[in-house]
Amino acid sequence: MLPLLLLLPLLGAPAAMAAPPHRRRGAAPPTAPYLTRYLRQQIDHFGFDENLTFQQRYLVADQHWKKDNGPILFYTGNEGDITWFCNNTGFMWDVAEELNAMLVFAEHRYYGESLPFGNESFSDSKHLNYLTSEQALADFAVLIEYLKTTIAGARYSPVIAIGGSYGGMLAAWFRMKYPHVVVGALAASAPIWQFGDLVPCGAYFSIVTSDFKKSGTGCSESIRNSWNAINRLSSTDAGLQWLSNTFHLCSPLKNLQDAAILKNWLSETWVNLAMVNYPYKADFLQPLPAWPIQEVCKFLKDPSLSDKLLLQNIFQAVNLYYNYSGEASCLDTSETATKNLGQLGWYYQACTEMVMPMCTDGINDMFEPQKWDFDALSEECYRLWGVRPRPSWILSMYGGKNISSHSNIVFSNGGLDPWSAGGVTQNITDSLVAIVIPDGAHHLDLRSRNPLDPKSVQQARALEICYMKQWIEKARHSH
Amino acid sequence: MLPLLLLLPLLGAPAAMAAPPHRRRGAAPPTAPYLTRYLRQQIDHFGFDENLTFQQRYLVADQHWKKDNGPILFYTGNEGDITWFCNNTGFMWDVAEELNAMLVFAEHRYYGESLPFGNESFSDSKHLNYLTSEQALADFAVLIEYLKTTIAGARYSPVIAIGGSYGGMLAAWFRMKYPHVVVGALAASAPIWQFGDLVPCGAYFSIVTSDFKKSGTGCSESIRNSWNAINRLSSTDAGLQWLSNTFHLCSPLKNLQDAAILKNWLSETWVNLAMVNYPYKADFLQPLPAWPIQEVCKFLKDPSLSDKLLLQNIFQAVNLYYNYSGEASCLDTSETATKNLGQLGWYYQACTEMVMPMCTDGINDMFEPQKWDFDALSEECYRLWGVRPRPSWILSMYGGKNISSHSNIVFSNGGLDPWSAGGVTQNITDSLVAIVIPDGAHHLDLRSRNPLDPKSVQQARALEICYMKQWIEKARHSH
Repeated sequence: MLPLLLLLPLLGAPAAMAAPPHRRRGAAPPTAPYLTRYLRQQIDHFGFDENLTFQQRYLVADQHWKKDNGPILFYTGNEGDITWFCNNTGFMWDVAEELNAMLVFAEHRYYGESLPFGNESFSDSKHLNYLTSEQALADFAVLIEYLKTTIAGARYSPVIAIGGSYGGMLAAWFRMKYPHVVVGALAASAPIWQFGDLVPCGAYFSIVTSDFKKSGTGCSESIRNSWNAINRLSSTDAGLQWLSNTFHLCSPLKNLQDAAILKNWLSETWVNLAMVNYPYKADFLQPLPAWPIQEVCKFLKDPSLSDKLLLQNIFQAVNLYYNYSGEASCLDTSETATKNLGQLGWYYQACTEMVMPMCTDGINDMFEPQKWDFDALSEECYRLWGVRPRPSWILSMYGGKNISSHSNIVFSNGGLDPWSAGGVTQNITDSLVAIVIPDGAHHLDLRSRNPLDPKSVQQARALEICYMKQWIEKARHSH
Repeated sequence: MLPLLLLLPLLGAPAAMAAPPHRRRGAAPPTAPYLTRYLRQQIDHFGFDENLTFQQRYLVADQHWKKDNGPILFYTGNEGDITWFCNNTGFMWDVAEELNAMLVFAEHRYYGESLPFGNESFSDSKHLNYLTSEQALADFAVLIEYLKTTIAGARYSPVIAIGGSYGGMLAAWFRMKYPHVVVGALAASAPIWQFGDLVPCGAYFSIVTSDFKKSGTGCSESIRNSWNAINRLSSTDAGLQWLSNTFHLCSPLKNLQDAAILKNWLSETWVNLAMVNYPYKADFLQPLPAWPIQEVCKFLKDPSLSDKLLLQNIFQAVNLYYNYSGEASCLDTSETATKNLGQLGWYYQACTEMVMPMCTDGINDMFEPQKWDFDALSEECYRLWGVRPRPSWILSMYGGKNISSHSNIVFSNGGLDPWSAGGVTQNITDSLVAIVIPDGAHHLDLRSRNPLDPKSVQQARALEICYMKQWIEKARHSH
């Protein structure tokens, strides 16, 4: 396994490969009764030389399905275990009855149990060769065709693609490329424009910064000042020792490289907090309180403190993220994301198709300045996997901003979510619609209903349901 | 090289793999001044393991191009040498000035000079692995992106895909899959529905038959009766000898298998005549007179003749096709199609993606009955290439008949063209339009203007130009 944080300094940009769009989404609904199924898929849909197959996992819940061609809500699985997405996409469970819908959650190849070559799947670039968005979309298309021809009463069921984050990108692209398979798509927090020069590379981190700025006086400034404080302390052995103790690190810092790892780990913590800045208590890898950034910022009111006092506060802040339960005896800088995500797979995707330029300048954001360095990424990818990223391919394939000829896609984005920087936040046409949820973090709308939901996410969900009903109705008439 | 006719009996259906949709299109325009260019393309757009490239050839003619973002007419090359398509698609040359358009003819990978692995390209299924429609479309998309970013004044040029036959299928699919790259497509004689069970497998040969029936009394009956006449004669050595002499065969028939080859060669001759049944003298592999089926049918007025008299007439008929110039000293049953077509490549495609069911019953058509036998095809493909065809893949990929959400495609079909059996011959929506040319054979509309053109093809071309102007105009406004 490749530790996330070791990569970052080499890659030249914070979170260049660090942050797969997807992050944990909070508590599972109390019960999520589904059937687990498998479909034999071609490992290579686009070539005929190696006629190998693998078992794709998918989950089905048809409790509320109307057998006479009732709709199917199809989750286009992203970079992780599909049961985890299934249990964390409460919105689909909440609307199933109202829409008389069957729920299907399709696992993305190379994640969870859907490993084309079993334990060998990540062994080298030859085995990884079939880990692309195009192959994943083809899996989805073949799976839906299979469901419609084998489930009695589903032949003319309208299918709606739903996904969040990378899964949202897949949902949107699925509708674009296979409009004969899905009548529409709900693409939640899908940064389909975080490619090439479609959006400024610094926008992502400036949203993270804005979240902290809005959540408490002195908060983002404290974080901005923390980097040099760490730099000064890590220049001596005593300072490294002090940092290790203060941050309760499981492995003490030994040199400047370790200090760089610490800084990247902190950066990613702030980024993660921005993504999961939800309005209610939620259970992630560790449980977090409502509006966690506000809680974190309570420790970070005074940016003008001395280095040690400032960093003690920084520790309090990250300790809230990693140790809200109070059970951790030490903090591990190699762990930031849930084990449910397939980091290795995502790194490979970031090294091939999913090249998302990111940068910081320390002025419009609270991070250490770091330019986007494609060449460094390319070298690192070659060193790691023997592959070179092709940054323009996704644009050629999926059209960049030139997508107005498509239809029936709802793009939802949270105003607090850094990934909204690469999202579609303005209507493109009558049927390519943007919904912005000002108080929402990363795909809040896909989460279960909650009494503490802000009005904006309630309205967003109502609108999403409205569009889905339109698509279903139209499909029914055209049939 | 794999002889075409040897395959047929094994495959269980006449022309199952015999007839790549494309056939020669007649005389080149007197001058076709174009520049030959090459673009380095990924051999595998859909995988990153082997980062190999090849040189794709394309031809450019910009004499009439308006440099300020004038339109580009982009020929989506099919299974053959692109210079041959360039010289035989007079329609594009005829309309370039009126539309102020640049002409680009892109060669399909694995044909002409665009061989990914040079002489090794067809050596085995590993080298053939990148011969798919999806890879070809990706080449086109990357090429257009390259042209728009490197040719001054082309950044916002609207691009229209044009193609005939398999090239027409590619043009239509290109607009479906890459609508951000092309504003519309003219898909001439494109049998996009000749797959799965979308159309009856016998429709193709029944159109061939109808062409002969309409072209002379007794004509199709004579051909229908010829098969048993051949069967009876080929049951004896003397009969085989007589057949060899009568048909002026370069290699005498030795056994029943050779006789089967003769019959398949005859079948393909009738099919080819149906495709190129043009209203004026035209120069194909051999030159042909106007309305060649009428000429052929002049020899085939009496189906009730004795076997030998009937077959002497059949010889006169095919001799007109193969020896109109009178220069051939003997007829070669291994040659039916122009050398400009890449038969080997097309056979591979027919063995993988392009599975087009064909059948005959001898009742609704004038051929020997032959059922569609997928298993036989699959076995033969495995024997030849080590690959298995996937007959449902094209349907999953391109949507079969469920394509109404796409836009800006004109499907033109000739009423005399057997490939119209698998074509779109009725409007699907306001912007998925069918044009039928009752007096047209295989993409007559793509040929140069001719004084003998029937009214119907003149009208078809006018309508096609009208749609292209609309697409261009709309693109200009939306920019």
